[in-house]
Amino acid sequence: MKDVTQYDHTTQLKAIRDTLYIIGGKWSIPIINSICNGNKRFKEIERSIPGLNKRMLSSELRKLEINGLITRSSNPLVPNAIHYEETDYGATLADIISELIVWGVTHRKRIF
Amino acid sequence: MKDVTQYDHTTQLKAIRDTLYIIGGKWSIPIINSICNGNKRFKEIERSIPGLNKRMLSSELRKLEINGLITRSSNPLVPNAIHYEETDYGATLADIISELIVWGVTHRKRIF
Repeated sequence: MKDVTQYDHTTQLKAIRDTLYIIGGKWSIPIINSICNGNKRFKEIERSIPGLNKRMLSSELRKLEINGLITRSSNPLVPNAIHYEETDYGATLADIISELIVWGVTHRKRIF
Repeated sequence: MKDVTQYDHTTQLKAIRDTLYIIGGKWSIPIINSICNGNKRFKEIERSIPGLNKRMLSSELRKLEINGLITRSSNPLVPNAIHYEETDYGATLADIISELIVWGVTHRKRIF
């Protein structure tokens, strides 16, 4: 566990808010995780997350791109060759994402 | 970083969803963190989180209690002696919370 005792309560609260502002909500983390898992095309990402519609995915991808967490690249010679990749900055979310996964797996075991 | 490669994409997605279902939203994590930081009374928690109103805090505390993350205890001999404490289960969120704080602190440095 990372030590955060050097930060006072206000700093901790601000930091939590900043993080949740960027990756909070229902879809950001599932989308980033899907891209990390090798889904690079819009359709691949869409299929990998049941319940997520095109419009929402489109808007979330734009948000993640604006925040520098993913890149969108296209090849003008190949139509529909747009693909998404996480940036080095997006990769810094890996620790958070794996903590969320581990906690969720344990929680599910506890419930059932 | 915790290794989650043993889980396939569907398991990861479910786990992320389960976790976000319990601690997603704007207030859960700030409230749990406030309680971890030693705020035990309703008023203390309320004051520690600017922007959070009574009604919302009340409803969030109930949700956290139902999910077994905090306990609410009262002393019938002392009026208004209700206090909240995290459970051992709530304490398992510490890793996630510290990751969120560390990421937020770094993100803020990056932006400014």
